[in-house]
Amino acid sequence: MSIGIIMALPGAERLAETLAQHLQCPACALDVHRFPDGESLVRLRTEVRGRHVLLVAHLDRPDDKTLPLLFAADAARELGAAQVGLVAPYLPYMRQDERFRPGEAITSRSYARLLSSSLDFLVTVDPHLHRWPSLDAIYTIRSRVVAAAPAIAEWLVREVPRPILVGPDSESEQWVADVARRAGAPWTVMAKERRGDRDVHVRLPPGVDPGGRTPVLVDDIISSGHTLAEAAHCLRGAGWGRPVCVAVHALLDAAGQDLLQRAGVARIATCDTVPHLTNAIGVAGLLADALRPWLAS
Amino acid sequence: MSIGIIMALPGAERLAETLAQHLQCPACALDVHRFPDGESLVRLRTEVRGRHVLLVAHLDRPDDKTLPLLFAADAARELGAAQVGLVAPYLPYMRQDERFRPGEAITSRSYARLLSSSLDFLVTVDPHLHRWPSLDAIYTIRSRVVAAAPAIAEWLVREVPRPILVGPDSESEQWVADVARRAGAPWTVMAKERRGDRDVHVRLPPGVDPGGRTPVLVDDIISSGHTLAEAAHCLRGAGWGRPVCVAVHALLDAAGQDLLQRAGVARIATCDTVPHLTNAIGVAGLLADALRPWLAS
Repeated sequence: MSIGIIMALPGAERLAETLAQHLQCPACALDVHRFPDGESLVRLRTEVRGRHVLLVAHLDRPDDKTLPLLFAADAARELGAAQVGLVAPYLPYMRQDERFRPGEAITSRSYARLLSSSLDFLVTVDPHLHRWPSLDAIYTIRSRVVAAAPAIAEWLVREVPRPILVGPDSESEQWVADVARRAGAPWTVMAKERRGDRDVHVRLPPGVDPGGRTPVLVDDIISSGHTLAEAAHCLRGAGWGRPVCVAVHALLDAAGQDLLQRAGVARIATCDTVPHLTNAIGVAGLLADALRPWLAS
Repeated sequence: MSIGIIMALPGAERLAETLAQHLQCPACALDVHRFPDGESLVRLRTEVRGRHVLLVAHLDRPDDKTLPLLFAADAARELGAAQVGLVAPYLPYMRQDERFRPGEAITSRSYARLLSSSLDFLVTVDPHLHRWPSLDAIYTIRSRVVAAAPAIAEWLVREVPRPILVGPDSESEQWVADVARRAGAPWTVMAKERRGDRDVHVRLPPGVDPGGRTPVLVDDIISSGHTLAEAAHCLRGAGWGRPVCVAVHALLDAAGQDLLQRAGVARIATCDTVPHLTNAIGVAGLLADALRPWLAS
């Protein structure tokens, strides 16, 4: 068995330390220095020869984080690492899985090619798989998908009395149904129509009644907040109580939070896959479980 | 012969239009839209099937520009382009051509691998080739290097009476010697010692006399401005006149310009490989000459 080393890209130090504790494996420094001209210098500060190197990165806002990540992976390989894996709890670019208009780049596929060219292994949490059936459709490296549903269901059972789960669109059904089953709660999904980045419209299916339960809007990603705000408006308009919003990946900014608050959302709880003030549900334990077999290989 | 199309990445529209005029070839829109969550959407707005697609990009501050470039190239290939080339007048990451300290990533090689994986052809101006003998050492695609020396020499002959060219270090000798020969001017190079990103020390070789000529400091890249400021101080200390600074690639910020002004620099003139207020020397004609054979292939 090879000795594993965990290395954090900038911003992922806390997750790397938590994983190191779970896995009883050293977390070592990875220096990323930006030169005055905007180029990045990456340096592994530990001997990696013969070891399993696990890079840990929060890949929200990915465009300027990806080159340093690829540079680190290339360096680890060149310096003799036995394998180089990546823990990216949020996997970006998964939503562009089709040419929605002629001439568009299918960035999910290009991004997958780039990561696959530098890494041996990928672990992520609930990637946005909609048109791609699995990561294997675009990633040519081994990958392991961790479902946040057990952690979310546990949080719901502990924090929200008598919930009814609501997905804002059909894409969210996979997450909503799984969490609802684990939490022993009823669920439904809305129908969504998207007219632009920030222009979405949703409606409840006919005949669904909250029955005095607390509505919990569940989605994989909160981004602009428009979808969930629209869903909250729709619930309020139908006479439901103030909803709780639960999501795996928190990509929203302050404007998005304001929007959700104005829409009558009582509370937002997200998993800590992307560092955010709304993080309430930890997934490091689930990630560590997924990583153990790889570190032991 | 295939019909060429020129497409500008954001910020390179002007160069793309100039090249289109030189090459009598259409310049077509390339949309790069940034979603609120920081991911990029790239869209080719023109049919590219069977055509030579020439992407034009200013790759200074490369980290967040590189993914959109690779996405555009992948999309062009997927949509049937006969070939996809890149005009990047400034080629970034060339200076990290060695592990200067243990564990460092050799980013020039990784960056070359990334570009080579999406493109068929690369045209650039005076890449910083120091330890790599040529681009072919790290780029696996066809490449063409354009020398800015003819344009710089022509500018010098027109703008600076009786120049003596001075390179700030031995790495600059290749550019200084070529420009001096073309401009019919004497030249020398200083010895440089680098102690950090912003800490450099230079000295003149013994016995060099300006003989009343205007000193012209010549380098391939002006970045922090520290090397050329130190060189200007050295010249002033040796009793030379106020120098003109000429460089191919202008990566310096306002602080760097202040530094050069305080060091007694009379004037800064750079090539337009990186858009900058100091741009005085156009290279589009030289780039167009290098591109004609490719477009005709």
